[in-house]
Amino acid sequence: MRLALSFISALALTAGLTACQGSESPKTMTNAVKKSGQMTGFDRTLKAAQVNLATKMDSPLAMPIPKDPGGGYTHETHKANGFLLYDVGQLYALTGDKKYAEFAGQAMMDYAEVYPGWKLHPAKKEQSPGRMFWQNLNESMFLLNVAQCYNAIKDTLSQEQQDKIEKDLLRNMADFLSVEAPETFNKVHNHGTWATAAVGLTGYAIGDDEYVQKALLGLDKSGEAGFLKQMDVLFSPDGYYNEGPYYHRFALKPFVIFAQAVQKNNPEYKIFEKRDGILKKAIYSLIQQNYGGLFFPINDAIKEKGIRTNELLNGVAIAYELTGDTGLLSIAAEQDTFVLTPESRKLARDLAAGKATPFDYKSMRLGDGQDGTEGALDILRASNDPKGLAVVAKNTSQGLGHGHFDKMGLLVYDAGHEILRDYGAARFLNVEAKYGGHYLPENNAYAKQTVSHNALVVDETSHFDGDVRVGNQHAPKLGTFIDDDNVTLTSAEIETAYDGVRIDRSVAIIKDSAFDGPVIIDLVEAHSESPHSYDLPFHYNGHLIETNFEVKADPTSRTPLGNKNGYQYLWKLAEALPIDGLSQVTWLLDRKFYSVSSAVPDGTKVVFTQVGANDPNFNLKNEPGFMLRAKTNDGISIVSVIEPHGDYNPTLEYTLGSHSQVKSLSHFEAGANEYIQIQTKDGERVGLGLAGDADPTLTHTVDVNGEAVTWTGAYKLFHSNKHKSAGN
Amino acid sequence: MRLALSFISALALTAGLTACQGSESPKTMTNAVKKSGQMTGFDRTLKAAQVNLATKMDSPLAMPIPKDPGGGYTHETHKANGFLLYDVGQLYALTGDKKYAEFAGQAMMDYAEVYPGWKLHPAKKEQSPGRMFWQNLNESMFLLNVAQCYNAIKDTLSQEQQDKIEKDLLRNMADFLSVEAPETFNKVHNHGTWATAAVGLTGYAIGDDEYVQKALLGLDKSGEAGFLKQMDVLFSPDGYYNEGPYYHRFALKPFVIFAQAVQKNNPEYKIFEKRDGILKKAIYSLIQQNYGGLFFPINDAIKEKGIRTNELLNGVAIAYELTGDTGLLSIAAEQDTFVLTPESRKLARDLAAGKATPFDYKSMRLGDGQDGTEGALDILRASNDPKGLAVVAKNTSQGLGHGHFDKMGLLVYDAGHEILRDYGAARFLNVEAKYGGHYLPENNAYAKQTVSHNALVVDETSHFDGDVRVGNQHAPKLGTFIDDDNVTLTSAEIETAYDGVRIDRSVAIIKDSAFDGPVIIDLVEAHSESPHSYDLPFHYNGHLIETNFEVKADPTSRTPLGNKNGYQYLWKLAEALPIDGLSQVTWLLDRKFYSVSSAVPDGTKVVFTQVGANDPNFNLKNEPGFMLRAKTNDGISIVSVIEPHGDYNPTLEYTLGSHSQVKSLSHFEAGANEYIQIQTKDGERVGLGLAGDADPTLTHTVDVNGEAVTWTGAYKLFHSNKHKSAGN
Repeated sequence: MRLALSFISALALTAGLTACQGSESPKTMTNAVKKSGQMTGFDRTLKAAQVNLATKMDSPLAMPIPKDPGGGYTHETHKANGFLLYDVGQLYALTGDKKYAEFAGQAMMDYAEVYPGWKLHPAKKEQSPGRMFWQNLNESMFLLNVAQCYNAIKDTLSQEQQDKIEKDLLRNMADFLSVEAPETFNKVHNHGTWATAAVGLTGYAIGDDEYVQKALLGLDKSGEAGFLKQMDVLFSPDGYYNEGPYYHRFALKPFVIFAQAVQKNNPEYKIFEKRDGILKKAIYSLIQQNYGGLFFPINDAIKEKGIRTNELLNGVAIAYELTGDTGLLSIAAEQDTFVLTPESRKLARDLAAGKATPFDYKSMRLGDGQDGTEGALDILRASNDPKGLAVVAKNTSQGLGHGHFDKMGLLVYDAGHEILRDYGAARFLNVEAKYGGHYLPENNAYAKQTVSHNALVVDETSHFDGDVRVGNQHAPKLGTFIDDDNVTLTSAEIETAYDGVRIDRSVAIIKDSAFDGPVIIDLVEAHSESPHSYDLPFHYNGHLIETNFEVKADPTSRTPLGNKNGYQYLWKLAEALPIDGLSQVTWLLDRKFYSVSSAVPDGTKVVFTQVGANDPNFNLKNEPGFMLRAKTNDGISIVSVIEPHGDYNPTLEYTLGSHSQVKSLSHFEAGANEYIQIQTKDGERVGLGLAGDADPTLTHTVDVNGEAVTWTGAYKLFHSNKHKSAGN
Repeated sequence: MRLALSFISALALTAGLTACQGSESPKTMTNAVKKSGQMTGFDRTLKAAQVNLATKMDSPLAMPIPKDPGGGYTHETHKANGFLLYDVGQLYALTGDKKYAEFAGQAMMDYAEVYPGWKLHPAKKEQSPGRMFWQNLNESMFLLNVAQCYNAIKDTLSQEQQDKIEKDLLRNMADFLSVEAPETFNKVHNHGTWATAAVGLTGYAIGDDEYVQKALLGLDKSGEAGFLKQMDVLFSPDGYYNEGPYYHRFALKPFVIFAQAVQKNNPEYKIFEKRDGILKKAIYSLIQQNYGGLFFPINDAIKEKGIRTNELLNGVAIAYELTGDTGLLSIAAEQDTFVLTPESRKLARDLAAGKATPFDYKSMRLGDGQDGTEGALDILRASNDPKGLAVVAKNTSQGLGHGHFDKMGLLVYDAGHEILRDYGAARFLNVEAKYGGHYLPENNAYAKQTVSHNALVVDETSHFDGDVRVGNQHAPKLGTFIDDDNVTLTSAEIETAYDGVRIDRSVAIIKDSAFDGPVIIDLVEAHSESPHSYDLPFHYNGHLIETNFEVKADPTSRTPLGNKNGYQYLWKLAEALPIDGLSQVTWLLDRKFYSVSSAVPDGTKVVFTQVGANDPNFNLKNEPGFMLRAKTNDGISIVSVIEPHGDYNPTLEYTLGSHSQVKSLSHFEAGANEYIQIQTKDGERVGLGLAGDADPTLTHTVDVNGEAVTWTGAYKLFHSNKHKSAGN
């Protein structure tokens, strides 16, 4: 453990963790801010690095003969050495203190001495084996660090030293990662990006353009592979990464670091302008995909991961260098960690100088797929307040092997919290006792299944019958996306998730004076001509407070809700029947109440669940949920209002507005046009008309209880004062 | 709802909630701190009050005829009026702006017009009815506010106005609360304190010493009742409040506000020096009883309540005025809210001037009972870091009707979180849908029962058989309390909780280099000569990670663990048998791991539980736990090491030290002397000798596997290097 901690101080250093991590007390923050009066965050990082290295540099680096797989001693030692050399090189560049250059030079000489003798790693992975590490991905990461170190200190070395390091370490490793590993190097995949970036940085460091050209254009320099191709393919035109933000942040680092080197060495390539500035878009879109500092946990995702991640520290600094967007300073303030680069220094200085402005969080449709034609991640935000009401509609493509089967699933956030949540990955990252820290069996069996999401399940099976190959072939067809003052809405449909069933979902955040704040309207429809059962789950976060129907949990027994497709992991707590076609469920989270009011078909049941059945090893989080469950012969339509309301204040000891404002809820259709009507308990009436055809010039009419409601364009929000009729 | 919100802005104003409440983002804090460069927190409170009142003062206050009980319109309106008049009076005093005095004078004239006509409240409570409110407690609170308002603006009124307000409102109400309600006024109870404080403040405001004397000395001015008597009785000599911190903070406000008025008007009474400065002690002891800003949730307690509570805003400001202790400025910084008093202004100014020093959190024994002889609340802190490891040992008396049956129960905190937790009260405060916001039936049936605490249960029954009258008669007998550099420990025993069973518990935080940080040693013993079953529950907070024995949760069914004494609310998830007398259970919370390693008798089972059986109405929080369960014929001894360890870092993606360091654990006895020995996986040995007699001159010897271990005094911490023998 003591040894292991020394790895960490190197890691922590690289990530600039001099200040607070995780949730902070106001006091800690106050101190941090006070301190920043004298020192910027970057200064603190720099100083901490100097202090840390002062002891590390007393003795030469350990360079054990490669033996252990990931997590083992030799693996972690070389990994830490790579980060440490990066820091040492940067410290020399930033301070000019020769001792850093001398230490780094000696360490690289030492590596040059042993590396040529290291053949394939004894614990090598079958695909893409390494020499210093069990897989060449780690070797790329090491070279990425060491090439930058060499670049920083090269001029301090003798010609003899340069020759030896270049020949026996840098070229040796770069060759191993390129010409000797074409299957990785030429792959259009994030492992390929790590390899091309490492090799390209080596080329710049040793002044050999051949490496640079291979890195940019592939081994044969045709452009069919290599870094530029990866830039073209791995992000959508909007900068969305196919697997989602958790893997996006991992892929991002080599992109931005090598691109920055290209910009410095070959500014004529205008690399940051390529593909309409795709790398900037990739940085921005990743930032937009966070709430409360944490990435949207779609697909396989460790939910604690967010914008403080190391990979995005470089990204934000580089984006700021490129754009001067002072909104990025707010992101840097939230990261509160810096890296040892001139760009990060500038970021910290401008932050300390008070130049930060709020980051421009906004509603957006991030097209998915290389051409942006494979669905989209739709983000609806009620405002640019990072803690305001927000909805994520997962209208993306499958997202490959890490994708989940949750077409048109929703995440809802409010007041800094997840309100309707995604389970994320079933995994305890690096926790040995939990399946070696790998994805748990429950990841495939529960977390990926449709029922673990806020997405419509048909016949208790997952989308595409849980087959990722089928899923990869089909993305939702996108409908309207609108971002107006009082209505932000998205819609999409898919007819390939289930045979013979087309699912539509339209989700809108609306602002109307009938409610104390913005609310969500959610219309889910399944079109089918054959009998099916439908489950619409709501995985709520909080404590159940009330329902508008009687519900009693079984007091003395629990049984699993099903036996496959994820249902076997849900305890069935209770089942109830809503009255008069309206289901209302209210829960409390922190200081607010949340209600889902749904107009449901006759005979719909509400089933209350808790995750954790068939979990003998205590692998699952025991999260609550409820689902609307119906069987019909001809499809289904469920319209819900998802409504944050009230105020639970235990400090001042009052509670207000604990009940939903929704009195009734109706849905009317006329062909492809929809009209949703809400009546509030205060007697107000709010209507949302949605056109099947978004043409702004077309006029639509829907019959609402005998009254014709008419509007022009894709949608209209109607408001009626008390005691007036519907329609306007 | 809109109307209700206006109540709240008045409330919020009084509590000075201009800045952030609840959990804060670093960004929000940064802004708050930035702002404080120009304005102090007090300035913000003042400004917000002015802005808020600007609109409120456009029209006269509504003064509806009393009709509704607590929570209803007339109740909430008058309550809000009281707070508003307090604010208006203070604003006049602070700004000198006549408009405030005019508004307040008119409002009091209006009240003087209607109040005499209001007889007993139509919804009056049987005991202690009010006129404006359903109970006279609320009337006292109203008068407390209004008397202070009158005091502030009196000089601006004509003689005629003064006469009318004094006669028809102030004296009328003060008489109603004193001579007309002797059963409350003369009661030595916190309701009595509210009444005496309100009446006494009225006396000062109108210049009638008769009211002051009755307030201080009781209606007959004998001193057998009244405020001074309450000061003598309601707090222990250490400033501990019998019912615990949740009710302490409620009782505190009238004490400090009236005492402050006494100090100003009759400094010769030296009220803050009485009983060795009991009121200062009461403020300090309440602050000490928080972790992470929240009060220790012993007995009936809303767990969200903490040092930001309105009642303690005055308390901290007044204590600072009295003591000049700059540690209190750190508490004010954490409160981040201010009240409209000169003392609070000074607090904010000194805070803004950077005078804050860390608050001196420390280990302490807070004696319980009027004479400090009825047990104690023992607080052990590993350091003065408010987020460090801390233990609360509930060695107090019962705590009257709000007391829980958890003699010598433990709470454990670390890294800002609850680690072993108390359920707190089963109540959703003011949430109508949850049993009208009152204590839920599950409060008596589960939350008060012994099994819901980290306390030893004998024969599956609660302490004192759950009878509060019996409980009130018996407190634990206190043993050693030590606060040295490397050992902080407390012990206590009780022989009245169960017939024929004496329970001892010794708990120590120890610091030894064998562990990465401080750990807890917990020795629980039951002495009995007859067969009993024993359950020692650990209500852990986090996700179960590993055990040193095989355990499988039942995959497809759950049943309640018992049918009475709280057991009926626990689902039994799994039962397992530890191997070789060592039970180890490890869980993960946020960024750290926690292990409980216990040396247990042969045949002990470990039962894993979750709260939530027999809960048809979803009233309970589904918290996990495990309990060590044994049956013996002659008592039991269980020694545990409660060990925070490791580091789970999802930002940098590493995990360290996820396993307990404890390899084995033994307990040796020689008469009343105990020796606990821990062997770590690194081969180190740590021993703790505990003497039955704490006399510092006595020498004790315990036979440890054939070797005599000897020490002098109450305890000794032994450390053996690797491969050396036990004993030293």
